[in-house]
Amino acid sequence: MTREEVKRGLIGGLGSWISGQELAASLGISRAAVWKAVASLRAEGYEIEASKRGYRLSALPDLLTEDLIREGLRTELLGRRIIASEALPSTNAEAKRFAASEEGTVVIAEVQTAGRGRMDRSWHSPRGGVWMSIILKPQIPPAQAFRVNIAAAVAVARALEGLYGLEVKIKWPNDLMVGGRKVSGILTEIGADMDRLDYAVVGIGINANLDPGDLAGGWKATSISSEIGRKVLRAELVRRVLEELEGASQEMEASSGRLQEEWSIRSETLGRRVRILARDGEFEGLAEALEADGSLAVRRDGGLLERVIAGDCVHLRPAGERI
Amino acid sequence: MTREEVKRGLIGGLGSWISGQELAASLGISRAAVWKAVASLRAEGYEIEASKRGYRLSALPDLLTEDLIREGLRTELLGRRIIASEALPSTNAEAKRFAASEEGTVVIAEVQTAGRGRMDRSWHSPRGGVWMSIILKPQIPPAQAFRVNIAAAVAVARALEGLYGLEVKIKWPNDLMVGGRKVSGILTEIGADMDRLDYAVVGIGINANLDPGDLAGGWKATSISSEIGRKVLRAELVRRVLEELEGASQEMEASSGRLQEEWSIRSETLGRRVRILARDGEFEGLAEALEADGSLAVRRDGGLLERVIAGDCVHLRPAGERI
Repeated sequence: MTREEVKRGLIGGLGSWISGQELAASLGISRAAVWKAVASLRAEGYEIEASKRGYRLSALPDLLTEDLIREGLRTELLGRRIIASEALPSTNAEAKRFAASEEGTVVIAEVQTAGRGRMDRSWHSPRGGVWMSIILKPQIPPAQAFRVNIAAAVAVARALEGLYGLEVKIKWPNDLMVGGRKVSGILTEIGADMDRLDYAVVGIGINANLDPGDLAGGWKATSISSEIGRKVLRAELVRRVLEELEGASQEMEASSGRLQEEWSIRSETLGRRVRILARDGEFEGLAEALEADGSLAVRRDGGLLERVIAGDCVHLRPAGERI
Repeated sequence: MTREEVKRGLIGGLGSWISGQELAASLGISRAAVWKAVASLRAEGYEIEASKRGYRLSALPDLLTEDLIREGLRTELLGRRIIASEALPSTNAEAKRFAASEEGTVVIAEVQTAGRGRMDRSWHSPRGGVWMSIILKPQIPPAQAFRVNIAAAVAVARALEGLYGLEVKIKWPNDLMVGGRKVSGILTEIGADMDRLDYAVVGIGINANLDPGDLAGGWKATSISSEIGRKVLRAELVRRVLEELEGASQEMEASSGRLQEEWSIRSETLGRRVRILARDGEFEGLAEALEADGSLAVRRDGGLLERVIAGDCVHLRPAGERI
């Protein structure tokens, strides 16, 4: 574990010079062992300078390791356990295997080989994105599970706005949009009896450092890096999402209605003409409100108010432009 | 498989004499082999008489084997796969292991060693009861999962009434009562995303052939055998429950509202003064209605209508007797 100790020492002094001699002495190892650990860290992507003054970690690598995520994470519950993998078929599927156990567990992978979105659609998950699943155990009945989904959408929107100054809107039911293009999607799965949830697994996919050419969905999708013109440190993004989600899920359990209000304010769907594609057919109308039961209220052209619980939604005209 | 073939021959002619010679000839085996199979079946509990006229199966044993359940089962979907065990920790837990696969799978055990009821309470499951779990995959969103529970309660009530002429009432949320005492309980568990259920596991426990002394809950519980004064053939009961549940779940997916109406008519809770014990405290009031979202509407003494989604319910006075 010499390598881990050296790493911790360098991360602790990020940007400052640390004497190799002092580092070796404080860890009770040889200077050669320090050098070996530094070489191994460099191979992993850590940028470490060496000079007469010692070693200096000049930049953290953009990796999603447990260490890098945990460094500076300000949460009580989320991330107590972090399972970081190079590749997984699906982080949601993996998280469900752990769902009986600990709340707050985070499963994350650099690549998903069989990522899934809503309606069993495949979800393109190449290197450079954030693909993660979080286990929550809110004390709510399954009829209110949609509130977890609302909390997650609001939390991710807050994180992207707070870190990168992006204006993030929500497309019903649960896509996060920047400039009208999708930057993140959420897939919440639950296990429950009729009295309460056993678990909720919140799957969050974010197009973080992805080039337009790597994006599934073509012109309908975007990434953070292509919106802000630089790469982001994904570990920092993960931390911020976990912190915002912890806050939002506390708000959710307090049942204040604030999250639903924020969802509505951030909505890119409300006030628009939409086409709804549901199991039993499709129709068009004006999206009027997010109801207390999580459904989208759509005013059909004939005047009838339809409550849509599940389905797809196509935006037909820009918000505000009504017929 | 000689034993199985002889068994099928005898079950097919239940109550009639079948010549041993003819049975041997039709199966292409010796008369000694027929005799050996008969001895083995007797050892298992089949009552088989022997005389000069041959063999006669006079009664089926009260066992919950796949064969005995399947014999004469009139369902399309439920029971396509029947997993019958001598003992399981919990049939719901076992069914959830199979829930990703086939709809209609039935898991049943003579004894549960760690049976569970609502709110993680233990559920006493000795020999003589019916402890089973059925996998359904209705195309409904998780917010409507309570409808599976309603369908199951109505189905079991119909089965017990149809087979034994018992008057069966439903105590909210999901106990089946005869003469004010509990005869059956239902525990529905689901896996879902926000668009639809992945599966529902309907756990049904019925106090079938149990003596009052074997019953958990003492004077608050009863069994079919103690109500009707004779033991029942549990395989027949299982068949009837599966048939009624298949019908009720089709009604449920058709969304007609009939099931909720029947639930209300059969309710032992509506119209009564009740004490509700919910997560956030307890209160008393008059149970007024089962709402469209599955909650119980209770009129508090102050006049406020409270909608209870999850909790326990204590009946305070007989129905009709109001203050």
